Amino acid sequence: MYDLIVKKRDGGRLSEAEIGWLIREYVKGEIPDYQMAAFLMAVYFRGLDGEETTCLTLEMADSGERVDLSSLPGVVVDKHSTGGVGDTTTLVLAPWVAASGLPVAKMSGRGLGHTGGTVDKLESIPGFRTQLDQEEFLRTVREVGVAVTGQSPNLAPADGKLYALRDVTGTVDSIPLIASSIMSKKLAGGAQAIVLDVKVGAGAFMKDLTSARALAETMVEIGRSVGRSTVAVLTSMDQPLGNAVGNALEVLEAVATLRGEGPADLAELCLELGAHMLVLGGRAEDVLEGRKILQELQRGGQALDTFKRWVAVQGGDPSFVDEGLPLAPERVEVPAPHDGVVSGLNALAVGRAAAALGAGRARKGDPVDHGVGVLLRRKVGDVVEEGEPLAELYCRGGRGLEEARRLLEEAYTIAEEAPSKPGLILEVIR
Amino acid sequence: MYDLIVKKRDGGRLSEAEIGWLIREYVKGEIPDYQMAAFLMAVYFRGLDGEETTCLTLEMADSGERVDLSSLPGVVVDKHSTGGVGDTTTLVLAPWVAASGLPVAKMSGRGLGHTGGTVDKLESIPGFRTQLDQEEFLRTVREVGVAVTGQSPNLAPADGKLYALRDVTGTVDSIPLIASSIMSKKLAGGAQAIVLDVKVGAGAFMKDLTSARALAETMVEIGRSVGRSTVAVLTSMDQPLGNAVGNALEVLEAVATLRGEGPADLAELCLELGAHMLVLGGRAEDVLEGRKILQELQRGGQALDTFKRWVAVQGGDPSFVDEGLPLAPERVEVPAPHDGVVSGLNALAVGRAAAALGAGRARKGDPVDHGVGVLLRRKVGDVVEEGEPLAELYCRGGRGLEEARRLLEEAYTIAEEAPSKPGLILEVIR
Repeated sequence: MYDLIVKKRDGGRLSEAEIGWLIREYVKGEIPDYQMAAFLMAVYFRGLDGEETTCLTLEMADSGERVDLSSLPGVVVDKHSTGGVGDTTTLVLAPWVAASGLPVAKMSGRGLGHTGGTVDKLESIPGFRTQLDQEEFLRTVREVGVAVTGQSPNLAPADGKLYALRDVTGTVDSIPLIASSIMSKKLAGGAQAIVLDVKVGAGAFMKDLTSARALAETMVEIGRSVGRSTVAVLTSMDQPLGNAVGNALEVLEAVATLRGEGPADLAELCLELGAHMLVLGGRAEDVLEGRKILQELQRGGQALDTFKRWVAVQGGDPSFVDEGLPLAPERVEVPAPHDGVVSGLNALAVGRAAAALGAGRARKGDPVDHGVGVLLRRKVGDVVEEGEPLAELYCRGGRGLEEARRLLEEAYTIAEEAPSKPGLILEVIR
Repeated sequence: MYDLIVKKRDGGRLSEAEIGWLIREYVKGEIPDYQMAAFLMAVYFRGLDGEETTCLTLEMADSGERVDLSSLPGVVVDKHSTGGVGDTTTLVLAPWVAASGLPVAKMSGRGLGHTGGTVDKLESIPGFRTQLDQEEFLRTVREVGVAVTGQSPNLAPADGKLYALRDVTGTVDSIPLIASSIMSKKLAGGAQAIVLDVKVGAGAFMKDLTSARALAETMVEIGRSVGRSTVAVLTSMDQPLGNAVGNALEVLEAVATLRGEGPADLAELCLELGAHMLVLGGRAEDVLEGRKILQELQRGGQALDTFKRWVAVQGGDPSFVDEGLPLAPERVEVPAPHDGVVSGLNALAVGRAAAALGAGRARKGDPVDHGVGVLLRRKVGDVVEEGEPLAELYCRGGRGLEEARRLLEEAYTIAEEAPSKPGLILEVIR
């Protein structure tokens, strides 16, 4: 191990055999954390080349169980988002794409910090079970075309162990390490093709387009190297996606979007990502055809129908689609301080506000309150009058209210003139 | 700790308070090794500035006991070598400088790998005790002007703990970390002024002049910052110093040097380093005067007399000075393969050969054989004839003989023409 640390420290290239040994011995506990921490910091400074990154990804994917989705009919296309604020795309896309006949078998995570997690959102639905065993997972996909389950702890355990170490040693922010972490879980989860939503901006992990592009290119390259078609869409996360930030609020927004009544930005992103999924799954010739197919499935009601059937099969009560979900009882408006146009809406601050209210968790294992959150009434480009509500806070027992209000007030920038409207979909990398 | 790792990773500067906290919590076991390892690797890449290095040095010096030498008459000048092959200077210098009336109270270490240690060499002398408690240490200096003892484990324990971690995480080769490690032990050992012998070349830790100069400048700067006059002499360690490499062999060579019959390079280096010690200790106006004083003390026999009295007070039998020491019984010559001039003699290979014979240790705590080693018959610039002995191996029970012979054969380069004689003393930095 000492030799591998020094090799990487001095800018050397690790062989496939060396990376394989490194990961296997680390998972076995034969390499101590302090040597791995030094190695990871050397990687932070020296990087990994394409071959090293692919080897690392495969070794981590092979460190635990690998889900076998080959028994499902058709190409299983996974979608992954690098995490944002108010990002409800999975809840919309999973049934929508499934309605086209393409199977959707997806593993999702929980929220941490200012970003939400699909599993938490689904658990807002009374009765919805997010821990399916492999047999039930596959049966659900066969029955309704779609299933979403929480990640098995035995999915790429090397990644889990490495990530926990990176998290406390300042070695998270390394593009090859981020890319291999994401892709190892996708490969272990059985994805046959992958659409990546790489978020860029204040509320995202990647703050600027250059690093987001580098991450996207690295992941697409890994996908190509291992024979899984991969497309990455770079999308803006300067302001939150959609209007709802909070678990039940986002589920309701997802339902509205499946009905064609959702926020334009969320609907647009779902169409784009879903169209790429249809192309990779062989259901559409190109993105334009994919978008048309999805629009028809939405207008014809098949997308929402699939959603309801899916919820029911995973134990949830689909009547909420018409009757709503229980939300926190206290509502507090954040008024505009003066007339103007919203010229900025910091996604990170909004995500933190929702977390302060109880929608997110500071540490793994903390409980979340599904009914609290933030509903944005005005977003970038909207004209506002003094005193008019910019946002509404859904709050329980006053918890986190003052902090959330302060964060929201800071999140909004109101100027005299409209800004140039930022694009949502920035680039497609394939 | 996470914040300090990221701060250093991103090229930031740590405050005095931050470094103090870091070292104290690490020694207490509150900071885990894996976080310290990541921090050290970040330091490897980002470095430490002068103030950070001085703070780190002082914190490590203060992490255990500090030896108080203020009760000794005169300025106690310590000498430190960064470690080489055949470097017997301490054994020569300690009594020689003491003979001038300047007290010498020195803590020394054991050998590791291809470099020897003063404590091991002294233990070649029958009866010589190298573990003195503080009281006996000071009493010995008062009585004969000189004492050398093994380092207390409680001397800068933070440095000991950090060094052990650096040793297995590829973070030894960092100039501010090396400099603060050396200087923290000198400060904790009570040195009032310091002469540093920074070795440069194949058998040294610093392989090139640029990095050796940077290390020397960093240590001199630390000394200045903490009010201890410090001078660094850069000296060549391309070939071994003197002719003897091995514990008892080196002791005998030290005695010969005190008699004025030692190898020219060893005598020259001792004169230079000793003269700087005399200048810092206020016994000489300049280096030239210091050299003259030392030459007189050698010619007049006072240097050797002090050596004998010192050995006796530390429990050794000084009769070996005339009667010799027990050496390994087997002697094997390494002959010159052809006529020519020695144009290179790799110190690292010679050090490894001596270690293979049993003179050194691979791991801390391994025993050493005091009687084995290498006696060099020819050095760089010497003319040789085919079959003539280049070196003589002192060996016991055939142990390590084949490896040592092979290493010696590789160590010597014999060319047709004499090389330009390399200088021994390269630079003085103060």
